[in-house]
Parts: sequence; C-alpha cells; structure tokens
Amino acid sequence: MLVYLNGQFLDKSKANLSVEDRGFVFGDGVYEVWRVVQGSLFESDRHFDRLQRGLRELRIAPPAETTLERLEEIGARLLRDNDLLDGDATLYLEITRGAAPRTHHFPPAGTTPTVYATVKRFVPPEDLRASGVRAITVPDIRWLRCDIKTVQLLPNVLANEQAHASGAFDAIFVRDDVVTESTHASVFGVLDGVLRTHPANHLVLPGITREVILEIARELGLPVREDAIPAREIPRLDELFLTGTTTDVTPIVQLDGMRIGNGVPGPISLRLYGALRERLYGATSASGSPSARSAR
Amino acid sequence: MLVYLNGQFLDKSKANLSVEDRGFVFGDGVYEVWRVVQGSLFESDRHFDRLQRGLRELRIAPPAETTLERLEEIGARLLRDNDLLDGDATLYLEITRGAAPRTHHFPPAGTTPTVYATVKRFVPPEDLRASGVRAITVPDIRWLRCDIKTVQLLPNVLANEQAHASGAFDAIFVRDDVVTESTHASVFGVLDGVLRTHPANHLVLPGITREVILEIARELGLPVREDAIPAREIPRLDELFLTGTTTDVTPIVQLDGMRIGNGVPGPISLRLYGALRERLYGATSASGSPSARSAR
Repeated sequence: MLVYLNGQFLDKSKANLSVEDRGFVFGDGVYEVWRVVQGSLFESDRHFDRLQRGLRELRIAPPAETTLERLEEIGARLLRDNDLLDGDATLYLEITRGAAPRTHHFPPAGTTPTVYATVKRFVPPEDLRASGVRAITVPDIRWLRCDIKTVQLLPNVLANEQAHASGAFDAIFVRDDVVTESTHASVFGVLDGVLRTHPANHLVLPGITREVILEIARELGLPVREDAIPAREIPRLDELFLTGTTTDVTPIVQLDGMRIGNGVPGPISLRLYGALRERLYGATSASGSPSARSAR
Repeated sequence: MLVYLNGQFLDKSKANLSVEDRGFVFGDGVYEVWRVVQGSLFESDRHFDRLQRGLRELRIAPPAETTLERLEEIGARLLRDNDLLDGDATLYLEITRGAAPRTHHFPPAGTTPTVYATVKRFVPPEDLRASGVRAITVPDIRWLRCDIKTVQLLPNVLANEQAHASGAFDAIFVRDDVVTESTHASVFGVLDGVLRTHPANHLVLPGITREVILEIARELGLPVREDAIPAREIPRLDELFLTGTTTDVTPIVQLDGMRIGNGVPGPISLRLYGALRERLYGATSASGSPSARSAR
C-alpha cells in the first residue's frame, strides 16, 4: 500500500512518524475524508474548504499541500498506484502541527506540519442500508468544538466500541436532552412530517453529506428544520437515519432496542438515499448497484 | 537523545511510529509524567496507579512494560544513558492502543499497544515561583472525562497558547462558573482562610501533587475543603496557586490583569511550597536551591 507522508510517496511500512509528532502527543491536528467514485473525489471542494477552516481555527499554518489542486494530485497518484480508480474508495488526509519538543503551547514558528494521506477500497454495505440498522444512544461527553474535524476522537472511539460490542451499527450522542450526531455521521429524523437535524453549531460537525441531504430535501420540496431532535421525542419519530461520507443515508430502524417508525427504512430516507446516489453515481445508475457502475 | 519505543532503546531520530498509530489518528492513548530527583522517580507508585487506572478506563490491555518495576528499569536506563542522574528531570511515558487499520471501534484483540518513554532535563524556575506568575482564565470546553490522563489535549494546547501569547504563565479553566484546573496543573485558592480546590471528579485530573499538597495541608493543620472556587469569588481570594509535577507550587499573583491578594506570593503558598520541597529534596535542603542539592 502506497501512502503519502510529508512530500513523499512510500510504502505504508516505511511511512514513519516522529515520536514527537503533536498528533501523537496532543491530538493536535485535523483530518478529512473524501469519498472517491471512479477515481473522482466527491464534493472535493467542500471537503477542502472544511479542511482549510479547521487549519485556520487551530492556527496551523497551511502546508504546501493545502491547495485543492495539489491534494487532488496526491489523491490521484495514490488511487492510481493502489489500483483504486474503479469503484468506490476513500481518501484520508491528516495534518498535524508537526513534530517538536513537547510544550503545551505552539511550537516555534516554522515547525513543519505533518501531512499524511492514504486511500482505501470502500464497498457500500447495501444490505445494511436496505434493511436498516440498529443503534444505541450514549451521553455526548465530547469537547465543545465538535465543529472542527480534529483527531480528538477518543470519546467517539469509546462510544463506537460500545455500539460495536453490542452488535449495533453506531452510537448516537445525546447532550442536554437533544440528539447531536453519531460517532462518525450526522443524524436526521422525521418528526410530524418535518425533516429535522441538529443546527450546524459548535456541537456537531458541519457534515458535507448533511449539507447535500439538506439541499436535496429542499429541492424535493420536503419540509426541513435545522432544529435538534429532543430525546423525549424519539419514540414519536417516523424515521431516523445517519448521513456521512461513507454512511451515505443509512436508516436506523431500532434505537436502544426500541423500534423506530414501522421498523423498516421509511419513504423519506429511501427517497433521499436514491437522490444522493444520483449525485454520487449519476442519474443512469441511481437505482443500480455500485458493482453495476464499476462495469460501465 | 536515547528514548524507549516498543521494547527498544534507540536514538530519538530512529524512534518511528506507524502512521496508523491510534495515538496519531484518534488521540487514543494515555500518558504519565514523573518528576525525577537525583535519579529517583518522585511518588513513583501513585503515578503508576494513575496510569493503570487510565488503561483500565480506556480498556487498553496493559502491555508488558506496565509493571512498576519494569517502568522504573526503563526510566533508570534512560536517565543513566542521557546523563540525567543528577539534579531534576522528567520521565514521560505514553501508551496508545497501538497501530491498526483505522476503525472507530477498537482494533482486533492482540493489537499491541504502543509504549513510548523519554526523559528530559528539568530546571525548576525558582525566580517565577518567588515572584509569582500571571495567568488568564478561559472557558473550560474540554470533554467530560478530564479525570483520565489522555492525549486528548487540544483544548489544553489552545488555552495554553492563548496564555503564552499574552505573556501569561498559564490559563485556568472555568466551567459553569467555577474554577476547575489549569491547562496542565491543579488550582488551589485560599478563601476566608480555607484552602480550596476542585473535588477530584470527572472534571479535573486527580493530580498527584494535588494529593500531596492536600496531605501536607492536613498535616500542617490548615483548613481544607475540596470544593470548587466560584469564579465570582476570585476577587476575594487571598491566595491562588498552581500545583503539578513540574509546577510544584507556583503562586499566581495576577489573574486576567487583576491582582490576587497582595500581589505577592502568600504565606500559605510559600509554606506549602517549602513543605513540598522537603518531600522532593529532603529536609536538609528544604530552604536551599536545587543546584545546591545537585552538589551534595
């Protein structure tokens, strides 16, 4: 597996970080994940904008790699050399404040950020999306800047492991009696005929797929409110689903052992998933399977 | 500089981490810092107990290195080979959940944790402690498991940088209108003649020096309450100080530009610092300088 690290393309086994990397010592970095379809980065510019915003918020000086053109070049080389130009894949990019002797405050100006990129095959789990998944709720104990896509992910790890260990697909965070998001996806619900999701403030990541789904919903004329779902209203939800770069639209049919709606993926979830697939794969294959696309 | 990484003693420049280390990708690890005086780890067992508790809380399987005996051996070798057996130093140890393909949930059982240890010269800044320092307050936006000493330290980094950039020594976190702790130390105050500090719950690290100072205060018969200092009471404080493994007792004489007490280190701070120095360096040198000790 070829990866990119600090200006070099090299085998993953040879891609080594300093033990003084501030990503390792402080979790002092941001990351981004692009969905790749047939070699193209989906919503490339929006992910790039979010990356740039993250660097600004953390005041990490943007390294030379942070132009959209250069990142697309790096992605293209990794995809090509790892034989991932067909079908679905992901591009993961992480930028930390670099390696320097440990001080809580920022290292000296001129410290070079660490830039790491890697690609991976992605096979959308169509069966899970067709059947819907089970999820659990957990208290949202994360920090109050969840709007920045940082590697401060330990609470997400612990919550996701809790879900995983119980056979659930994901864990949904609840803070102050409202649903925020899941460990790695946005959460939408349908309540009284209105599509609801948490507003894009400091408590949730401004999900790219979340934005796309909101756009699609408005195009389709669905009533939409960026207003968090109160936990006490969960039993009244008609539909509940996750959205994300690799989650697409994943219906939740059972939460904490309680059936959601009719216990099967609802009509709005399915309609939005269909429309998202059109954006991802093109109109002609909207109802086809990803494998059909690869054969185009 | 010789460091320890995953069973090997090697030069820092050759100590390389995998790009898949979960410390780097998720901040999925714990760390510990020991104060070293004349080659001995101060309060060795308490730091070790806290490390073990952190591993348990995160459900990281304790690696072979996690016996007190083995850690002391690793520390001794690093101190000897880096010529740090005289004077003050620190031993830093970090343990992450290891390197594995990226999944939010835990990697497969049997994934070997990463163990990294390094030592460093430490010169107590006696001038700052004698004069007292300036600090600022910042909102405590950290996650709700600050009792575990994890590398989820980005909010600490950002707050400490804010202090550093303004010429202050440290930033003190305030959550829900009470003082919790600083970016890397515990906070004590003297209010109405009573020594106060935040209770050791999920909002603060159970500081080893914090514990030692509480013990010393009780031995000295000082009135003590583990009850957080309300932010509104800060103007009424007679004394305010930080405690920590490398902070010892550092008086704060100005907070957010406001004078604390008489604007000089107070009698209780000085008395506690003296007593802590006795524990660190022995009774004979309690009033001497650290350099005097090294010459013993």
